[in-house]
Amino acid sequence: MPRLRVALAQVDPTVGDLAGNAALVRGWTRKAAESGAHLVAFPEMMLTGYPVEDLVFRESFVAASRKALEQLAADLVDDGLGDVVVVVGYLDADGPARVSAAAAAGKGPRNALAVLRHGAVVARYFKHHLPNYGVFDEDRYFVPGDTFQVIRLGGVDIGLTICEDLWQAGGPFAVAAAARVGLVLNINGSPYEVNKDDVRLPLVQRRAAEAAATVAYVNMVGGQDELIFDGDSMVVTPEGTVLARGSQFAEELLLIDLDLPTAVDAEPPATAGGMRIQRTEVTGPLTRLGEDRIEGRTAPRVTDEAEVWQALVLGLRDYVRKNGFRSVIVALSGGIDSSVVAAIAVDAVGADQVYGVSLPSGHSSQHSRDDAADLAQRTGLHFHTTPIQPMVDGFLANIALDGIAVENLQARVRGVILMGLSNQDSHLVLTTGNKSELAVGYSTLYGDSVGGFNPIKDVLKTMVWQLARWRNAEAERRGETPPIPQSSIDKPPSAELRPGQLDTDSLPDYAVLDAILHGYIDGDVGRDGLLAAGHDPAVVDRVLRMVDLAEYKRRQSAPGPKISIKAFGRDRRLPITNRFQG
Amino acid sequence: MPRLRVALAQVDPTVGDLAGNAALVRGWTRKAAESGAHLVAFPEMMLTGYPVEDLVFRESFVAASRKALEQLAADLVDDGLGDVVVVVGYLDADGPARVSAAAAAGKGPRNALAVLRHGAVVARYFKHHLPNYGVFDEDRYFVPGDTFQVIRLGGVDIGLTICEDLWQAGGPFAVAAAARVGLVLNINGSPYEVNKDDVRLPLVQRRAAEAAATVAYVNMVGGQDELIFDGDSMVVTPEGTVLARGSQFAEELLLIDLDLPTAVDAEPPATAGGMRIQRTEVTGPLTRLGEDRIEGRTAPRVTDEAEVWQALVLGLRDYVRKNGFRSVIVALSGGIDSSVVAAIAVDAVGADQVYGVSLPSGHSSQHSRDDAADLAQRTGLHFHTTPIQPMVDGFLANIALDGIAVENLQARVRGVILMGLSNQDSHLVLTTGNKSELAVGYSTLYGDSVGGFNPIKDVLKTMVWQLARWRNAEAERRGETPPIPQSSIDKPPSAELRPGQLDTDSLPDYAVLDAILHGYIDGDVGRDGLLAAGHDPAVVDRVLRMVDLAEYKRRQSAPGPKISIKAFGRDRRLPITNRFQG
Repeated sequence: MPRLRVALAQVDPTVGDLAGNAALVRGWTRKAAESGAHLVAFPEMMLTGYPVEDLVFRESFVAASRKALEQLAADLVDDGLGDVVVVVGYLDADGPARVSAAAAAGKGPRNALAVLRHGAVVARYFKHHLPNYGVFDEDRYFVPGDTFQVIRLGGVDIGLTICEDLWQAGGPFAVAAAARVGLVLNINGSPYEVNKDDVRLPLVQRRAAEAAATVAYVNMVGGQDELIFDGDSMVVTPEGTVLARGSQFAEELLLIDLDLPTAVDAEPPATAGGMRIQRTEVTGPLTRLGEDRIEGRTAPRVTDEAEVWQALVLGLRDYVRKNGFRSVIVALSGGIDSSVVAAIAVDAVGADQVYGVSLPSGHSSQHSRDDAADLAQRTGLHFHTTPIQPMVDGFLANIALDGIAVENLQARVRGVILMGLSNQDSHLVLTTGNKSELAVGYSTLYGDSVGGFNPIKDVLKTMVWQLARWRNAEAERRGETPPIPQSSIDKPPSAELRPGQLDTDSLPDYAVLDAILHGYIDGDVGRDGLLAAGHDPAVVDRVLRMVDLAEYKRRQSAPGPKISIKAFGRDRRLPITNRFQG
Repeated sequence: MPRLRVALAQVDPTVGDLAGNAALVRGWTRKAAESGAHLVAFPEMMLTGYPVEDLVFRESFVAASRKALEQLAADLVDDGLGDVVVVVGYLDADGPARVSAAAAAGKGPRNALAVLRHGAVVARYFKHHLPNYGVFDEDRYFVPGDTFQVIRLGGVDIGLTICEDLWQAGGPFAVAAAARVGLVLNINGSPYEVNKDDVRLPLVQRRAAEAAATVAYVNMVGGQDELIFDGDSMVVTPEGTVLARGSQFAEELLLIDLDLPTAVDAEPPATAGGMRIQRTEVTGPLTRLGEDRIEGRTAPRVTDEAEVWQALVLGLRDYVRKNGFRSVIVALSGGIDSSVVAAIAVDAVGADQVYGVSLPSGHSSQHSRDDAADLAQRTGLHFHTTPIQPMVDGFLANIALDGIAVENLQARVRGVILMGLSNQDSHLVLTTGNKSELAVGYSTLYGDSVGGFNPIKDVLKTMVWQLARWRNAEAERRGETPPIPQSSIDKPPSAELRPGQLDTDSLPDYAVLDAILHGYIDGDVGRDGLLAAGHDPAVVDRVLRMVDLAEYKRRQSAPGPKISIKAFGRDRRLPITNRFQG
């Protein structure tokens, strides 16, 4: 059996940074070459970053992607890396940038993969299955490919596929079986969701069985606006054995020596499953491998809380870094949400880049102020206090407000202060509304909702508590100071906008609320289904009404990392104007 | 030739209001019956409203739509309207609510049309071509139909189609020709864009020629979040003659007597163009027509400015009405943007429901205050003044800000006051940033950008001036007081956030800016293309950079009516994190 040394580069590109992404490919290809790899595979749309959304429609962007690919092929030779076979995702087009009438003729923008060697593009593949659900709009952007590309390298036939091709049975992986390849490469931009890794492995196993070939799966790492790519690259045999598996949320080069079946020269079919099969020989000698065989490493799996925490930290870090911020600012109320956000921020960018401000009003309890200060001391973030009452009183002296309008006024005065400090010192403002609050509209628009990024936007309140407990326990395990004051975890949640106010005055208990929200939002379960699940009809009616009415607030909310099966934002598209109840 | 009396009901449904929409169908069917119509056609997704977006995924919503259709059929009989053939759009499903694996089996949610008579659904048709571009995501929601439905009524064969079916050659209209029908009905939810009516007529003419049949096109009217449906229903012969054409932006019943070819009984093909042809006889006698023949009326066409003005008025009126607001509030600076928004609001909901507030600072000129007061007097809206300086000073006494941070502070104090008044009196806050400002980020987030709806969100600054001049001229033509002070139109625009500030201090002249924005945004023209069009390279680079950097602000902006080929929002989906320039 021929032996191939394969490197899966799970790396973190930036959307639109063609030069920077190409530099990443060169750097990681060098590492692969230094380890003797014959082939190194990079993620989907590596050169452009992913997803590029409507940038696809700009001809100049498509041209830049194609040009960057040519340049990369040449630069790899200049780097002395021409011998390594580099598989890289990019944006291509063989027709107008807009999918329209041209699509009928099967021409247009392509979610593409190129095989580079010795300065040339030796093969290309266009993604066959285009996802158009959840956060994905690929029917909007791409024309599907209809050719299955096989490359022969070192006597092994390798089939090339991209992301969604893996998620559907009877597609390119069935064609791979017909083409009798020994290995299927699958390059991905597959966003993180809680438990997605538990779905991904059996999926790769099913597809490896369908292809009757080993599958090498490489996924992107990093944050892009609301998406987090978690890596979790892997190599799985046709029998389902995991030969190697990368970690999540970190760049790494997953290296492995694979003994693969020799390519069969008997005439195979020229088409299968509606796809044409195209074969390309990758010529030129391969680096001779030494005696030492590289066995793949398998990263340990972690708990859900650890996974989510790492996801949120990476999502925030990348938003800060890729958008050129140097620091973040967050209002610390002493409550659980702002405490968790601050702790995430400290893990993401370091305490010295985190500015916490306490903005107490006359209704703020002493324990709130103490807990905020305690958090600052535990984490080492910058901290100062500005009481808001003088400014609140300034408004009340000039306009006649009462009731909820006064409650909201306090939140908005805080928002003005935060934004002023952000403008003055160029901090990114973090907002701290959890998913349960966003769902029911338990927030003040332009008040506590101000901010450029919301680390816990997709985290239900009950999960916020779980994360806090996990992070403190993790600190203790490491012999560090737990970042979050126990009192912030234990006390009953309150917005403290009027004396003695508690969240439970206007909301059901969070355990009840979150169960309803999980059904209604993540599961699209309507009223009848929720009642059948045993929820109280009056509570269900009230919660559903609150969720529907708050759509206008969510439409103006800050972005934040998706961790659930359905995050607010592009994942859940609902009208504001909507009279349906049920 | 058999004669049919056809009624096209271009009416204004509300998303999710199944009972209300069914009541509309009954009411307009009564009018049609009173005029002796044999058939009345309603718009696409009439029963559910359109677009319903992710409501499609809720099984309870699909079930409610199907049930509402059955109920409607029965109610029409109770109303004594069972003889009239009613064609109505609704949401159906013959598979799981989510388009997924089931789609491969050709089952799932359907953008559907039903033909009702005598209490029964006598025929159904499922939309064949699904738009998945611009604001449309129909591949996300629907499984395409593959059956072309023909009904025979009064000896005439009528083919049934929905919206996008009209926009593509070689589809159902080609099948209509193969099926030799005498009339093709096309029911629509076709959103307004400037000049779309000029595209629509030639399109209907081309399709009528392709079908070799008369085409009856009926479109929805009304506002739904960011979309405005403009009506413009029409009847066109195979030769391209316009027999009738409805007005835009108003509900109406377009009635016409059509002498149509007798159905051919020779055996026609059972399939054509990949679609199965299904034929259904609509039985039962038709109302005998009298001697008087109803000729279709043809509404006069109006200028672009009149069209846009009516669109914005309808968009605002429907947002207010359908979301249960009773009044709107707007900050009046004396500038052109807020003046135009106030005038639109007065036309939309009446002066007595419009509250204008002047919020002058120390930098506000006397002419600004005077112009705001003048506008109030001209239009009759409620008006009062609250100077902001005391509140601005309150912040400056407590936090150290200078430069841009102080400019933004003023805008944010205004935002807090507006939102306070909104909370206090339940007004909808109108925000007044034009498309040019939104494009380049010339606004203060949570400051002048606060508000639930932005009537001029998609109106470039140069068009704002055109609209103001048109509206004033229109008032003069009608012998009324022009609403907008001439001085607001004539003076150079300024944000008045520091002494002597002018927009041109930081922006190019608006004529230059708008030309670049039109190319970059509406046309996806990149840097090279803009230079080729003769724009100054330094200006292009600066403007493109500003547009890209402001994406994060637009993501939190209020909704507003789409009038251009590409509005900010679902029409233009760009990443915030994006390093591409060009």
